[in-house]
This record gives sequence, structure tokens and C-alpha cells, in this order.
Amino acid sequence: MRVQRLALVGCGLMGGSFALALRRAGLAGRIVSCGPDAVALAKALELGVIDEVAPGAAQAAEGADLVLVAVPVAATEPVLAEIAPALGAEALLMDVGSTKRDVEAAARRVLGPRLERFVPAHPIAGKETAGVAHADAALFANRHAILTPLPENPAALVQRAAALWEALGARVRRMSPQAHDAAFAAVSHLPHLLAYAYFDGVARQPLGADFLSLAGPGFRDFTRIAASDPAVWRDILLTNRDEVLRQAGEFRRALDGFEQLLRTGDAQALEDHIREVAQARAGWHPGAPPSQSR
Amino acid sequence: MRVQRLALVGCGLMGGSFALALRRAGLAGRIVSCGPDAVALAKALELGVIDEVAPGAAQAAEGADLVLVAVPVAATEPVLAEIAPALGAEALLMDVGSTKRDVEAAARRVLGPRLERFVPAHPIAGKETAGVAHADAALFANRHAILTPLPENPAALVQRAAALWEALGARVRRMSPQAHDAAFAAVSHLPHLLAYAYFDGVARQPLGADFLSLAGPGFRDFTRIAASDPAVWRDILLTNRDEVLRQAGEFRRALDGFEQLLRTGDAQALEDHIREVAQARAGWHPGAPPSQSR
Repeated sequence: MRVQRLALVGCGLMGGSFALALRRAGLAGRIVSCGPDAVALAKALELGVIDEVAPGAAQAAEGADLVLVAVPVAATEPVLAEIAPALGAEALLMDVGSTKRDVEAAARRVLGPRLERFVPAHPIAGKETAGVAHADAALFANRHAILTPLPENPAALVQRAAALWEALGARVRRMSPQAHDAAFAAVSHLPHLLAYAYFDGVARQPLGADFLSLAGPGFRDFTRIAASDPAVWRDILLTNRDEVLRQAGEFRRALDGFEQLLRTGDAQALEDHIREVAQARAGWHPGAPPSQSR
Repeated sequence: MRVQRLALVGCGLMGGSFALALRRAGLAGRIVSCGPDAVALAKALELGVIDEVAPGAAQAAEGADLVLVAVPVAATEPVLAEIAPALGAEALLMDVGSTKRDVEAAARRVLGPRLERFVPAHPIAGKETAGVAHADAALFANRHAILTPLPENPAALVQRAAALWEALGARVRRMSPQAHDAAFAAVSHLPHLLAYAYFDGVARQPLGADFLSLAGPGFRDFTRIAASDPAVWRDILLTNRDEVLRQAGEFRRALDGFEQLLRTGDAQALEDHIREVAQARAGWHPGAPPSQSR
């Protein structure tokens, strides 16, 4: 399972953490990276995250047995197009993007005969601090890694992809790209949108700065994801727009229900409704198996 | 500043934490508590949080130099009415309620000649785990404690109240009850409402349980407050309903703005808007002094 040459296309938090995790697992040979941010690449060299900088994605991918594309979602297609001619016939190509239908469509447009080497992946891990300087070898430990394999993928290649993520500590789940995008619109993309909107709604009030100075630990946790990387989340929200807007509609209906209970002042009904939610949330843990729906 | 006899009316997370913090500060004499939950009181005795159980609030308050009311907001008025006849002329009476206009109004209705001894207080601290078993001597350390003194309070009494909270590690701020309720609707009460509504909106979908099984650390932090105590938050939301609904309106306008950018697909405008929020959030820290409003 050892990776002789890892090509890391994009050298930020996710790519850097993958490189560190692979090293820690004792599976890393040479790690080559490339990307538009020369400062980040220099930092990655200095930190020992990577061994070498290549001038472009094609040069990095040349001779690599594993190519990991870790760029903002909207950059995936041009990067895949650049990699395709250089990709070896036995190489494994993966991404780490937070949306999967668009990534599969982009791959079908540009990968040509190498399409079957591409196993789309999405590790459910992250921080609100972007950049390779925050890369963390433990980022994927005990996190889900979702694979949305293509019908064209050889079974052994998908096995290899799964084994790699498991070697980094992740729990692998296979899904269709449609099911993936619907689920993550609900549990990841919408919360980011809500956190951005909520923080914005408070901060732009005339007394906003004063309000913010009084906020405590509940606010801190609720808005943590509102500090997430703007370019990354612009792409995710636009790419998965239809599902995100559908989930925003579900949320607005639920909020309508709570506001209605406030307006009617029905204390018992409000308490019952809160209790139902609070108990369900108290029984939830990251990575828990699905329980019966309410 | 030592408290010879602390009467703790209500023995949950907040009251228990106050008792433990007072002990740790070396300021606690005898601590007497009372409340409707015999199991909680027994637990508090067993944990050494309190020294004695009184049969009721009046008996607990009798001879106490400090009476702390730590009950759900809606229970404040009957509890104050019970305490009033037993309260000493030199005693300090405080609450810890998350809303303050209603508490002041209740105090004016029932405290009679002892009104001047009541200094309304709200420590900005909490956990999503309720109950005295989770009481924590460090709960108030480096947190704000808001006082909304009455015009009737002797200045020395307010000083005593402030010095007590400071001795427990809190940073004291004085505000009007109106300013308090408006600010905390924005930075505390609305986020709870949104977290309840968001979790509910996901969980009640046909695939909700499956979605929830995929959620990661961003979801965990965003929904942490959705596990908060139902009786406590029923009271807070209903008591401060007008301000909470006003803040919900501000939030909906901000969300409309983000959704509009998604619908038009203006990537640059969306990124700019997210960046503005993300930078403001990254520069925010709990208890930071108010910066210039944007």
C-alpha cells in the first residue's frame, strides 16, 4: 500500500494534512506538490510536509502512483484536464472535494481514457483555519471518508483507495454522488450558510459591535464555521446550490414552526418541541450509526 | 466579602457552580439550598456542593447574607415572593437569569420593602449539560457577569455584588435591562432558536437519520446549543420574545441576501460577502472589547 510518489495538486490544509498523515502512517515515499501559491509551497517544504515542488500539475503527476487533487471545487476541472495526459495507467487519482456530482461530471468531460483511475473522495474533516501551516497528521482520524466510485473504476482500485483512507484513521463509506450531495447540503453546506448569515445579521446592526463584545461560548461554537475559507465555500455553495437552497427551505419551515410557537405563547408546546430536539441532539455523536428517524 | 450563609434557591448547574466557585475562592461559609428536585439536592449534598437542605426558599433565606436565585426564569417571581418576608435588611439578593426586564418587573411586584436589596445579575456562562452533577467551580472564570442594578440599590450593595462576581473570576459589566435583553436576544437567544430549528429541520426529513450519521465536527459545534435545557430555554425565549423575533427578522434579511447571491450565481459577490463575514468572525474573541462596527 506504500505510496512511492504522491503528487499533491494544491497544497493547503487538506492536501498538507493528507501528506502528514501518510508520512505518519509510514506509507509515504516522495511527496511532490504544485500550485499557484509559491509562499504556501515554500512553507510546505520548510515544514517538511512535501519533498519537492513541481512546476505544474502534469509534472507533479508524471510517475506518481497516487495523485491527490486538493484544490477549491471550482478549480477541479482545469486541474484534472492538466493531469490527464501525464497520469500513469496504474495510478490512483483522487480528490477531496466537498461536492461530488460536479466533480464526477468534470472528470467525465476531461479525463478521457484515464477516467477509470479516478475515485472521487470527500474526507469529512476540516478546520476553520485554512492553509498548509495548519496541516495536521490527525485530521482524518476517526472521521468519515466518503468515496463515490464511478461505474468505470476497477474494484481493486476502489479497494486501494478505501485502504489508504483507512490507513490514515478514517472510516470509509461508499455512496452515490447524488446521495452525497443531498446529505452534505443538509449537515454541512447549509450550516455554513446559516452561520455566515447569522453573524452578518448581528454584525451589521448599529449596535452590532457592542452586541458581539458580550457574546459567550455558545455564540463562539455556533459561529465557528463562519470563519471558514471564503473561496472554498463560495465554490461549495454555488456548486451544490440546488440542494443547499432546498435545505434552506426545510430550515425555514422548521424556523417558522418555532416562531409560531413563540407568537402564540404556548409554553408547553414550545417546551415539548425543544425537548424533542434537545434529546435527539444529546443522543447524537459524530460518526454514530444512523438511528431510527423520528 | 466572605459569605457567612449562602442561600441557594435552585440547585442546578448555575447555582451549583456558584457554590463551588465561592468555595474555591475561600469565601464560602455555610451553604444552604432548596428546590423542588429532591434527587438534585441529595446529589448536591453528596458532592459537597451544599452543606444543608432547607424545606423552602423562605427557610433557606432566613439569616442568609447572600441569597442567589438560580431557577428557570419563569419561576423567578413566585420564588422572590417566597423569599421577600424572610430576607434580612442587610442581605444581598441576586438572580442569574438570562433575561432582565421581566425579572426586574417581577421583583417590583413582589419584593416590597426589600426591593432595594435585589441586584439582578446574569453570568454569561453555561453548558449544554444541565444539573448540579455538572457544576463547575471554573464556570464563571473569564466570563462576563452582567449586572442590571435598580435605581433603588444602595451603591455599596452594587459594589458588593460586583466584587463577588469578580472574586469568582468574572468580568463585570453594568447595563440597563433593556440593553441587556436586546443584546442577548442577538448573541444568545436567537442562536439557540436557530440551532433548535436547524436540527429539527434536518432530523425530520425522511433521510434525516442517515444525514445525521454523516455529520462532522462543523455540525457538532453548530448544533451544540441545540442540546440546551428545554425548560430554561422555553422561559428565556418566551420572556424575551419580542427582541428574539426582531433578531430573527434581522437574520432572515441576512439569509435572504446570501440566498439571492446563490440564485444569481454571482461568484465574486458571494466570495466578497463571505470574506467580509469570515474576517470579522476570525477577529472576534469571547469577551473582546467592542471594535468599530462595520
